[in-house]
Amino acid sequence: MNTKLEVKSDIEIAQQAKMKLITEIADSIGLQEDDIELYGRYKAKLSAETLERIKTNESGKVILVTAINPTPAGEGKSTVTVGLGDALNAIGKKTMIAIREPSLGPTMGIKGGAAGGGFSQVLPMEDINLHFTGDIHAITSANNALAALIDNHIQQGNELRIDQRRIVWKRALDLNDRALRKVVIGLGGPMQGVPREDGFDITVASEIMAVLCLSEDIKDLKNRLGRMVFAYNMDKQPITVAQLGAEGALTLLLKEAIKPNLVQTIAHTPALIHGGPFANIAHGCNSVIATKAAAKLADFVVTEAGFGADLGAEKFLHIKARTSGIKPEAVVVVATIRALKMHGGVAKGHLKEENTKALRLGFANLQKHAETLQNFGLPFVIAINKFITDTEAEMNTMLELCAANGMEAAVTEVWERGGDGGIELAQKLVEVIEQHEGTFSPLYELSDSLENKITAIAEKVYGAGKVEYSQKAKKQITQFEELGWGNLPICMAKTQYSLSDDPSKLGRPSDFSITIRELKPSIGAGFIVALTGEVMTMPGLPKNPAALRMDVDEQGQAVGLF
Amino acid sequence: MNTKLEVKSDIEIAQQAKMKLITEIADSIGLQEDDIELYGRYKAKLSAETLERIKTNESGKVILVTAINPTPAGEGKSTVTVGLGDALNAIGKKTMIAIREPSLGPTMGIKGGAAGGGFSQVLPMEDINLHFTGDIHAITSANNALAALIDNHIQQGNELRIDQRRIVWKRALDLNDRALRKVVIGLGGPMQGVPREDGFDITVASEIMAVLCLSEDIKDLKNRLGRMVFAYNMDKQPITVAQLGAEGALTLLLKEAIKPNLVQTIAHTPALIHGGPFANIAHGCNSVIATKAAAKLADFVVTEAGFGADLGAEKFLHIKARTSGIKPEAVVVVATIRALKMHGGVAKGHLKEENTKALRLGFANLQKHAETLQNFGLPFVIAINKFITDTEAEMNTMLELCAANGMEAAVTEVWERGGDGGIELAQKLVEVIEQHEGTFSPLYELSDSLENKITAIAEKVYGAGKVEYSQKAKKQITQFEELGWGNLPICMAKTQYSLSDDPSKLGRPSDFSITIRELKPSIGAGFIVALTGEVMTMPGLPKNPAALRMDVDEQGQAVGLF
Repeated sequence: MNTKLEVKSDIEIAQQAKMKLITEIADSIGLQEDDIELYGRYKAKLSAETLERIKTNESGKVILVTAINPTPAGEGKSTVTVGLGDALNAIGKKTMIAIREPSLGPTMGIKGGAAGGGFSQVLPMEDINLHFTGDIHAITSANNALAALIDNHIQQGNELRIDQRRIVWKRALDLNDRALRKVVIGLGGPMQGVPREDGFDITVASEIMAVLCLSEDIKDLKNRLGRMVFAYNMDKQPITVAQLGAEGALTLLLKEAIKPNLVQTIAHTPALIHGGPFANIAHGCNSVIATKAAAKLADFVVTEAGFGADLGAEKFLHIKARTSGIKPEAVVVVATIRALKMHGGVAKGHLKEENTKALRLGFANLQKHAETLQNFGLPFVIAINKFITDTEAEMNTMLELCAANGMEAAVTEVWERGGDGGIELAQKLVEVIEQHEGTFSPLYELSDSLENKITAIAEKVYGAGKVEYSQKAKKQITQFEELGWGNLPICMAKTQYSLSDDPSKLGRPSDFSITIRELKPSIGAGFIVALTGEVMTMPGLPKNPAALRMDVDEQGQAVGLF
Repeated sequence: MNTKLEVKSDIEIAQQAKMKLITEIADSIGLQEDDIELYGRYKAKLSAETLERIKTNESGKVILVTAINPTPAGEGKSTVTVGLGDALNAIGKKTMIAIREPSLGPTMGIKGGAAGGGFSQVLPMEDINLHFTGDIHAITSANNALAALIDNHIQQGNELRIDQRRIVWKRALDLNDRALRKVVIGLGGPMQGVPREDGFDITVASEIMAVLCLSEDIKDLKNRLGRMVFAYNMDKQPITVAQLGAEGALTLLLKEAIKPNLVQTIAHTPALIHGGPFANIAHGCNSVIATKAAAKLADFVVTEAGFGADLGAEKFLHIKARTSGIKPEAVVVVATIRALKMHGGVAKGHLKEENTKALRLGFANLQKHAETLQNFGLPFVIAINKFITDTEAEMNTMLELCAANGMEAAVTEVWERGGDGGIELAQKLVEVIEQHEGTFSPLYELSDSLENKITAIAEKVYGAGKVEYSQKAKKQITQFEELGWGNLPICMAKTQYSLSDDPSKLGRPSDFSITIRELKPSIGAGFIVALTGEVMTMPGLPKNPAALRMDVDEQGQAVGLF
């Protein structure tokens, strides 16, 4: 490995990479210039006509990338996703990547950017991390246009008898801004609206983001937007966007945002980056439209889901796959030795010290996720994402643990080496797919009661012994089933750090119970959110925000994204 | 005139028009595909390199389009601006148009769209009226990123000793949303920030919009952003964005938004649509960068300023022209017989009735604006924008009044006939420019005191007899001069409906006084706002918002923009 490369940051690597024109990338998947809508030289949207036309193509195989429960040590799930796509192309499999769009909030806050890393990145990195093609801004506009129409409806006479104490629609900004979590609006007298409590979520937590990502097309989008429940009336009956008559305007605001965005990796693998719902309050997957389009344009599609397999993969399989009919062929579970050591009890400051004992303990976390995927009937490969600090003894232990548990595993070095560092994983994955026909089946049926669905996830995916409900949650379950919402899937909002609902319980906790504090209907998205503990839907900025290190140099190039 | 055309709406005309590819439009002004950044087939941004390269070109002549004080009868200033551009091209003058971007707020509220009208429109109309190339969304993001950084700075220890009672920076959304005018934020306990009063402006009222529009380039943009004052500290000293260290991040967020957007009229005249600051709290003109670029790429540039000549033209001349060195060759003042009849006392319901007497009375409003332009030393032509309800007697009276007062005038029918309806105006304008060399000079010097600058505008532009100051304004004048802000130009925030500060005083009021209630420093933009009466910086939605009539049809086309 070239030692000079080691000191380069993601943005330096990205800026030094030589991109192909997006028209060339489109050409590589059989699309002409007329099939795409250019956004500069290196970004494009697939046109509505193109999306319609390719529907008759045969569908390629969908590979889902997930991970162990995330830790501060870092797993590199997006980096492996990108590197795996490059590697599959390198071994002759025509592959596309389908992943989520990053939100500006975390970019300006802690992360400073997110589109893979090292030599496994999606480009143009700066654009993807800033406004990209404006999809998230369109969602912010639609979210807040609805909010303004709601408050205006009340101000102008309140024909729908909206109970202003029971408005469940919040405003949104694509920023980390803790001061907007709880606000009072409409102050200043009768000409400035009706005072009420309100709050802002980060845009990616808006139901509209989930709706956009689960829609099959613009017609489905409009129907889903119309079904969203934004408040209850004085008789405690839900009021929908269609009753307000606003679904047409919201659809109009989203008519470009619903088209998937075509970009490329450093190795010129075509990538669709589209949609980015939260993986707690929402389902944490890129759009159905993008995943399906990629499958129509390539033989393999590598896609990922948010957080660990207990949240992201479970929701991919129970919500996205079920509603859209997308059937994954195999799953890749990303793990690092560092992160498993943290699951085994090592503190962040001691990760560089060799510790095979902690690794063995922490391996239990990976093992639980592997068992869950077996329960789903899906073949999988473990991607051991190698870090420079991993010792030989640790790597041997890791490989031995995988072998002893009958898990297919491959070491990846995609950060440093791009697709070349993912060849073994790609080969093993193709073998697994050829050898094992997946017999994917969900762990619950839609016709099960809400309570049984929650129990199925808690017991079969988390390994919980018991589910407890608050008084409020119990009452809501009865109400929701009476309102006809009982046949919707569950979207669990749980900490990503633990299999349990307690973020401090690392590894593979046992004998724990999950507490359902509250339910939240996302009728447009088509799921019922079950909240365990407090869920953050508007992050805050840290003491030293990444924004304060950002700049533009004399050539107009971005500085401080990384 | 084809009677079928009369019933078509603006959006129908726009959707039936045949656009050229934007690469062809670029080619018509000597730009190659590499010189522009495409946003779909019909929109593009001029690249930073292109803007730099064309600086050595000779500059064309800049024509400013302004109007009488606006009335509910409608004047059609943007429509005349577009039609005049088409007409100048039709008579062989190589012409570009440089106008403002519409805000989503009014589009969703009352207007339903704004990019000219009839056969004098800029295309693609739907895109321009919705998210366009994302410039306004980038400004919203930058505005609110700064707000989040301010509240986070206080939360994290408040090193700059920001007085949370004296934060003058407001949050922003590009929507009409009265319920956000006055809010309390930071509620919910110590982890959710510090509670304080706040409010949201519509994004086009953000100082960042004014800053972007007055910047010469990205370096100037960053310096201006750094100079913005967002709060005062415990010693009542101003705190700037540079002290917070946020100007780099804000510049990064705006690095694409600062590039002007190239589109076309129905007649394929190239148009730069870029920036759109409010004409009350800000200066109401499109960007300096776009106006200058257009002048480098064409022999004539037709540009407009917001509201009537008392606000828009005065600010164009005292703020935009002075800071940038753009010197207008001539001015077009748009008037309609209908609107002058309203200035002469006719109520809106009676505009169809012939009334030459009211027209003669209302003509005084136009006359005052004409005198002001003479004071500025600028030649001008009156554009009499013909309506189908104007009677022959009224038109004869109008032409007679113009002639009697020595005003050059031309009748325009650009809504119905596009550029063909503006040929007479174009010809007269070219004549006027050839015959009269403008001797433009401002009506006050920057070295004058703030008070003398305000008096110069009130007396010479509005015709006021006297200026009165609130106690607060008097104190602020002293403070601002002590802080070294005394040499900045004044940006008057006044009602657009009257030459006075009382919207009910139509025509040409006399013997009135102007009351300065408060001053507001816009140090980044480089002016001091002088507020007369209440100024609306966050509009509300009407009883029946345009949004509720919007939709997308089966083909994905916009419905309900007009």
